[in-house]
Amino acid sequence: MIRLSTAHAGFEAEFRTLLDQARETTAKVDAAVAGIIAEVRAEGDAALLRLTGRFDRWAPASADGLRVTPAEIEAARAACAPALLDALDLAATRIERFHAAQLPRDVELDDPLGLTLGMRWSAIEAVGIYVPGGKAAYPSSVLMNAIPAQVAGVRRIAMCVPTPDGALNDLVLAAAHRAGVTEIWRVGGAQAIAAMAWGTASIAPVDRVAGPGNAYVAEAKRQVFGRVGIDSIAGPSEVVVLADASQNPAQIAIDLLAQAEHDESAQAILITTSAQMAHAVEHAVEEALGTLARAEIAAESWRRHGAIIVVHDWEEGAALVDRLAPEHLEIMVSQPGPLFDRIRHAGAAFLGAHCPEALGDYVAGPNHVLPTGRTARFASGLSVFDFLKRTTWIAAEKRGLEAIGPAAVALAEAEGLTAHARSVAMRLGQG
Amino acid sequence: MIRLSTAHAGFEAEFRTLLDQARETTAKVDAAVAGIIAEVRAEGDAALLRLTGRFDRWAPASADGLRVTPAEIEAARAACAPALLDALDLAATRIERFHAAQLPRDVELDDPLGLTLGMRWSAIEAVGIYVPGGKAAYPSSVLMNAIPAQVAGVRRIAMCVPTPDGALNDLVLAAAHRAGVTEIWRVGGAQAIAAMAWGTASIAPVDRVAGPGNAYVAEAKRQVFGRVGIDSIAGPSEVVVLADASQNPAQIAIDLLAQAEHDESAQAILITTSAQMAHAVEHAVEEALGTLARAEIAAESWRRHGAIIVVHDWEEGAALVDRLAPEHLEIMVSQPGPLFDRIRHAGAAFLGAHCPEALGDYVAGPNHVLPTGRTARFASGLSVFDFLKRTTWIAAEKRGLEAIGPAAVALAEAEGLTAHARSVAMRLGQG
Repeated sequence: MIRLSTAHAGFEAEFRTLLDQARETTAKVDAAVAGIIAEVRAEGDAALLRLTGRFDRWAPASADGLRVTPAEIEAARAACAPALLDALDLAATRIERFHAAQLPRDVELDDPLGLTLGMRWSAIEAVGIYVPGGKAAYPSSVLMNAIPAQVAGVRRIAMCVPTPDGALNDLVLAAAHRAGVTEIWRVGGAQAIAAMAWGTASIAPVDRVAGPGNAYVAEAKRQVFGRVGIDSIAGPSEVVVLADASQNPAQIAIDLLAQAEHDESAQAILITTSAQMAHAVEHAVEEALGTLARAEIAAESWRRHGAIIVVHDWEEGAALVDRLAPEHLEIMVSQPGPLFDRIRHAGAAFLGAHCPEALGDYVAGPNHVLPTGRTARFASGLSVFDFLKRTTWIAAEKRGLEAIGPAAVALAEAEGLTAHARSVAMRLGQG
Repeated sequence: MIRLSTAHAGFEAEFRTLLDQARETTAKVDAAVAGIIAEVRAEGDAALLRLTGRFDRWAPASADGLRVTPAEIEAARAACAPALLDALDLAATRIERFHAAQLPRDVELDDPLGLTLGMRWSAIEAVGIYVPGGKAAYPSSVLMNAIPAQVAGVRRIAMCVPTPDGALNDLVLAAAHRAGVTEIWRVGGAQAIAAMAWGTASIAPVDRVAGPGNAYVAEAKRQVFGRVGIDSIAGPSEVVVLADASQNPAQIAIDLLAQAEHDESAQAILITTSAQMAHAVEHAVEEALGTLARAEIAAESWRRHGAIIVVHDWEEGAALVDRLAPEHLEIMVSQPGPLFDRIRHAGAAFLGAHCPEALGDYVAGPNHVLPTGRTARFASGLSVFDFLKRTTWIAAEKRGLEAIGPAAVALAEAEGLTAHARSVAMRLGQG
């Protein structure tokens, strides 16, 4: 953990070091992934069975067995505690409602010259959702990836999830069921991405692939990009907490650690106007650390990437936030609204003392798939927009063509595209 | 050119061959581009000067000379024909108006449980626009790339354009001026993308890069993706024309050729319900070909990738369009609206006989940067959305936290994230 203060002469250099710190070393898996994709393209289901056997130490006798059955989904739901199913349902209902509010409207512009211009939104037809297996199998991620696609109107959602040693994750299946996903394949890794992008005899190809995964999954998404659409490739998670002297240091400390417990590469940063609060939080973090189930991971993240920055005022603080462009931003000050209005770059913001980031991770409604690693400067969280596309359209009466056609002819000729020019001129009776 | 008919027994196989036809062989430039990016990162302006000398056979004495001066822009405008400046202005005004109509609204949802959820749109701060030089220097592309960024509210737009042998393109500079772009660098190729993504002493880094380019530019965009945002990587252009027996075959022919003249990899396809129209258009294409400035290119494209498909009815026709998911779709039938409503996948549509695609390329208002190579299944044309990003936010009163917090605690515990659970529980008085 590093302690910075904008009052120190060396602050700018220290802050730049923090900004440029690489938190992740990307494994070189390009060639391995290219090989797996080539196998799946060449051999389809046979390659899926072989690769599933190799990586997940489990494989059915035939490709039919790769698909999770309705009975398995029902059994998984029955095995979940009713309180957990209720929690999933509350989360799903709220996520549905928030994403429905995102749905955009079509544009139709009537033009006095005699043209009508429009933009029509429509859903992507088939989408593949990747869900990691094993330790990092998060039912909340199933909801966050599948529900925006459902709300957007995607007709077919195929989900791939590895089942290491054949073990199904009950809560993941229950979440898929709640999100209306019925096509679930027990396939993971780069082979799952390849199957969804290129199709096999069993798994029909999709148009877009979304969802988190390990280095192999991320590289496979890079390699199939263009063949299908992909979502952004997530890096390690991060939070910036802004806190003034009015806040409870124990709450801030646990919020920082909630970020740090994700993995050793996660980053938690406190920015405060109060030197006293900085000390109190540092102390509270040390105290809370020992009590966590994932204490070692959280401690390592905090030691390596944690930071506490004391600023003179919130003008300085807001400027630092924009440079960090954090995935998550908690604004724990007495008047969070005006401070939020001054900040331009953040994936998701959590305003006030009653709004820990974990509320948004699970049940508040906005998506928890967010841009990491300063990409909030140009990228956004997952939303219905990831599952929609636009078709623009033009309709012209003859007088509309006559009004603007000559300018098109002039520009086409200036660009040396004579067929372009003539396609307009001919309709003006000049061809 | 191939002639297909859905009435033939072999149609499905023939159509699949057409769908899977690779129209472009991608040059292997990965290593060369990686080297150029490394040079620019290591040496900055010095590398730009050296690479510009090597590739554009021109270089100023110092990096200051890489920037186009206000006097050069003024001189370029003065050298353009007034009618062309008027045409640019008409185009720009219409493009501005259409893109302004795309601007989305923020979301704010009040929740009876005591939470407020929101989504706020904001502009990307700094954007780089790449404009190809030499033969393919299209002033229309400057407008189509820069105006959506301006309308979105981007504060800084930097433009890079190569000037081979030092020659500036007057109309390109005039278009940049009309679009409000004042920061123009005479740098091209992978070195331009590297400079915009990583920054040099002269060129401040941007957050997103957009614009077309050759194989080196496309590969450079791939390699800087993640550091900055990029637009889609365009493949060769294509059009599908739907025409019934009521249309003028000469107009359809010239529209097909307007696509074909772009380059040898372009693709023009006619789908018609009339066998007679199919013959008439085939004949009209042959006749028109000889009259074009770019006749050889158009002939090669038509020979290699052109197709005329006769369908039984528009139900069949619409289904084929969705499988082709074309960049451009002309619907030249007597009632284009209902047919357009049945089609799900196309980048841009042009409805009726008075609406050749070239109108949209230049002056109608919608963008001409569109998804190619069947990517309209999941991708969209350039728009203000490419220059905006979203921040979601949550505000909670204490009673809101109390209403939904317990579900968050339950899910966090089920996922083994105890600090997440405690960050909520502590605020519920359970920590």
